[in-house]
Parts: sequence; structure tokens; C-alpha cells
Amino acid sequence: MSKVMTIGEILVEIMATRRGQTFREPGLLRGPYPSGAPAIFIDQVARLGQPAGIIGCVGDDDFGLLNIERLKRDGVDTSAIHVVKQATTGSAFVTYREDGERDFVFNIVNSACSNLNAGHVDAKVLKDCRHFHVMGSSLFSFRIIDTTKKAIEIVKAQGGAVSFDPNIRKEMLRIPEMRAALRFILELTDVFLPSGHEVTLLADAADEAGAVREILGLGVKEIVVKRGASGSTYFDATQRVDAEALPAHEVDPTGAGDCFGATFVTCRLQGHAPDRALRYANAAGAAAVSQVGPMEGTADFAALDALVAQSTQR
Amino acid sequence: MSKVMTIGEILVEIMATRRGQTFREPGLLRGPYPSGAPAIFIDQVARLGQPAGIIGCVGDDDFGLLNIERLKRDGVDTSAIHVVKQATTGSAFVTYREDGERDFVFNIVNSACSNLNAGHVDAKVLKDCRHFHVMGSSLFSFRIIDTTKKAIEIVKAQGGAVSFDPNIRKEMLRIPEMRAALRFILELTDVFLPSGHEVTLLADAADEAGAVREILGLGVKEIVVKRGASGSTYFDATQRVDAEALPAHEVDPTGAGDCFGATFVTCRLQGHAPDRALRYANAAGAAAVSQVGPMEGTADFAALDALVAQSTQR
Repeated sequence: MSKVMTIGEILVEIMATRRGQTFREPGLLRGPYPSGAPAIFIDQVARLGQPAGIIGCVGDDDFGLLNIERLKRDGVDTSAIHVVKQATTGSAFVTYREDGERDFVFNIVNSACSNLNAGHVDAKVLKDCRHFHVMGSSLFSFRIIDTTKKAIEIVKAQGGAVSFDPNIRKEMLRIPEMRAALRFILELTDVFLPSGHEVTLLADAADEAGAVREILGLGVKEIVVKRGASGSTYFDATQRVDAEALPAHEVDPTGAGDCFGATFVTCRLQGHAPDRALRYANAAGAAAVSQVGPMEGTADFAALDALVAQSTQR
Repeated sequence: MSKVMTIGEILVEIMATRRGQTFREPGLLRGPYPSGAPAIFIDQVARLGQPAGIIGCVGDDDFGLLNIERLKRDGVDTSAIHVVKQATTGSAFVTYREDGERDFVFNIVNSACSNLNAGHVDAKVLKDCRHFHVMGSSLFSFRIIDTTKKAIEIVKAQGGAVSFDPNIRKEMLRIPEMRAALRFILELTDVFLPSGHEVTLLADAADEAGAVREILGLGVKEIVVKRGASGSTYFDATQRVDAEALPAHEVDPTGAGDCFGATFVTCRLQGHAPDRALRYANAAGAAAVSQVGPMEGTADFAALDALVAQSTQR
């Protein structure tokens, strides 16, 4: 089976326990949970029985160990995770405001994550990799962008494909070189996985239909638009497939998009048609939001089948 | 009244809630608490009604705000705390092992704290400062050591005194230049505030009596050895004064040494004799350990008087 690999931030997440809790006063928290968008993605890939690996950096601390142990347990190849002695594993503190929006305190750009560099990527590390996934959240420095490009070029040269989830902060796109770098990655992308509002982020077109046409025109083969509770839509050169979301009791949305993308990519690699891949991906999103903790809701096919069966019985 | 100032790390502390809890799995935590040895020290100084200020760096986040608000509320001049846009406020995760020892995950050396530099220190910032306190924990880079030396020289030139609490990790003293820099600070010190095992750290002598003689010989005027539950001892050129610890229900020792030192220094500045200053300092230590959270146990004179009265009634 094709090995899926990704690159980027491996974090711990610390969560407030009460809606409306702030980080300007002491309170009860829960954590550390294993986290980081590419780490969640690759954990979900491995849970589906696909060979999977991640290139990343953690600190020489319990937060790094926590992540390595969890990923290993779930079947991820962690041999390309580097332990950086002089750095601390990245972290994200998360609280939900009364209005449902999230507030964060991040320690990422000065954490171990930021030590990723081109030296961490070569043909040996990417041996057997036939699918490489890029998380927009990981591309917070030009050094990491260059490192990611290097990985993409190696995987493409050995006949592999690339998926790209552009979950990136809008402010970063105001930097012209950053926008150009992300466009470059988009042009090498086979499967583009934006959330609804992100479809137009890297396109000239202002609306979804126009952006989809434009991006398919660049050579991107498949686009899947994630719409959370409103389901998802698949586009390729010849068809559009819509799929409803599965009913879910949402307790924590963090990681749902990552699990969705991982499941879609894995299903396609395992030969499932787009409609079936979408259904499984929606089920993975539903599983993810039903658990507290960003990586706690990754699920295997048995769990996804049970969720799908449950939803069709209603 | 003389203004006391200090420099160094301003942190948040996140505490495990259960003895034996590890950071290799999710659990219940408590925090963020305002913290950082110099921040705790200066908060305690201000609680005793002494003019007080701190030079430090925080990130542009809620953890920084939490500290600034707390210090301000307690009367500390926070105008020399710099908000660094591109950094995260430092943090320390703390858990108690079954054997009573503490385990940490620190994010300090790559946090906002590390941005301190000589540009943050000048005669204007140190205007009115007649006592400068140095925390060994803050001296984790040569840039910060140089910045601290600059502050000491300014304060000394305007007729002020220096206190020095060498709470430093032993490993750092293996770096010869680091040891030399700390010796240099010791030679400019008026009040030296080591914990029991630290008396010999920067001395050639191997035992306490020898080290005390040696350090007084350098020109240090007063030495106070902190012995936790075993009390404390004051030394100067002519006398030794021992003081018993106050009985305390210890729930969290973090910050006790900082509160002790702050109270001793403030009492001496306010004209109290060594034995009375020691008694208040011991009371401040007892107050500190009785509260969960490193800065939660700072106390005013009314609270310290009550503790002393309580202990003599027994």
C-alpha cells in the first residue's frame, strides 16, 4: 500500500474546561493533548490502516514524548520526528468564548516546530512515500516552505501525488512572497482540501464556482470543499458530488477538518470512488467533533462504518 | 522610600492537580498562574508597601496581560515590562512526582523572556531605584547577564545596593564564562540570599562556614541562608542570627524562597534589625507555601504579623 507522509507542527493542546473561561486568570484546564494539524492528519491516516509517516520536530520533553508515543501506538512511522535539545515542544492553549469562537495562546513559531529545515527532508526519509500532504498551518516561515517544496519535488519525482489543505491565517497572505509560495504549492497539488471560505483564498475568482474552475485549470485533479455541519462537495474536471454531514454531537471541533482530509485521501488511495470517500470523510469529521481533544477523535474503518450505519438507520 | 527593582523572567505556571500526574498523558491542570522568580519577588516587595518595579518581557498574549494586571494590582510599577509582538510569554508546567520532587516542562529560553537586552536598561528606567535584586534563574544567557550587569552598575553609581539570590541550575556553572559572570555579580552584591545547598555554589570553600567567611571577604555585607522548614540564618562581619521557620501547612513550595528574600530585603530597607527581618521573611515563606500557585501566597505586613502572632501563641 502507498505510504502517506506529511510535514509540520507537532504540538500539545491545553484546553479550558469552561465556556467563557479566559487565560487572564487561573482556572481548571485539561491537557496536554497530542495535537498539530499535520500530526492529527497522519494519525487518522494510520488509523485507517494506511502506511503513514510524519517529518517534524519536538522538544526534548514530555510533550514531545506524548506525541511520539501516541503516533507510534496508532501506527505512524515516527522515525523522521527530530528531538531538538534546545527547544520546547510547541503548544496551543484553547478556550471557547461565550459566542462560540475560540481564543488561543500559541507557542509555535519559537518552539521546536520552527527548527524544521531542508536537512530533515531527503529521498531516504521519503522512501516509499507515494502521497505527500501539506498543511497550510505548517507554512509559517520561508525555510519551512522551502523544506516542504523539497519534499513535494522528491515525492512527485518518484511518481507520488500531493494533497494540500490551505488552513492558513489570512494575514499571512498579505505578504506577497508568502502568497506566491502557496500558489506554487497549489500548482503542484493533486487534491485540494479547502474549507468553504478558503476556496477563493489562493484564486483570482471571488466566488466558489469560479475558484473551482480556476484551480482545476491549474492542473489540480480533485477539489473537496469542507463545509462542517453542512457536509462536503467533491469537484473534478467532469463531476460534482455533494454529501451531507453525519449527525454529530459536537463537543470539540478542533481536528475535524484534518481527520476529514486524511480519510478522504486514504479512501481514494484505497480505491474508493469519490462519493464513498466523501461519506467516510464526513463520518471521520463527525467522529472527531464528538471527542474532547484534537487527536482523541481519530477513528478506524470499523468505527466509521458504525457511524455511517447509525446515520442511515435514522 | 527606596524603590526596589529587579529584572528577569515573567512566566505563567500551569500545575498538575494530582501527585504523580505526568505530562505524557492528558489530565486535569490548574492555571495559568502569574509566575517567574523575579516577578514573585517584586510582587512580594510591593505587597509590603515598598516602591517596586520590574524590567522584563512578555508576549502579546493573555499570559502577559495576566502578569501585568496582577503586578499592577499589587502595586508594582510595570512600565518597564515590554510586550514583544513576535514571542509568546514564557511558561512552566509543573507536576509533583510521587517522591515529592518536581518535574517541569519549561518554555523560557525561547520565550519572550529571552528578548531582554541592554536597550531595556538605562538611567531613566532605573530612576529612583536604590535597591536592585538579581535572580540567578534569570541569568540564562550572556546577553541577559550583560544587561543585568549594566543595571547593577547604574544602581550602584546612584548609591544603591544589590541583592542576589543564586537560584541557578548547577549545570550552568560548568560553563566557565557563566561561573565567572556570576562571581562578578557576587562581588558587586550587598545582600546574598542562597538556599542552604547554594552557599558553596560560587565559593571555593566546600562547607558553609568557609563559604560564608569567603563571601563576606569579597565585600558582601549580609548573607542569609534559607533552609526552608529548618528556618534561616543571617551572617554579617560581626554576628550570626538563627531564626526558626514558622509552622506551615505546605501545599505548594514554589515561590517561597522568592517571597522570603523579598521580605528580608524590604524589612532591612525599612529599618528592621536582622532578627526581625528574618522573622518576617520566615513568615512570608510560610504564607507562600500555604497557597496553591507561585504568586498567590504573597502577603502584606498585616498578614505576616498575624502569622507571627499565631506562631508565638502555640
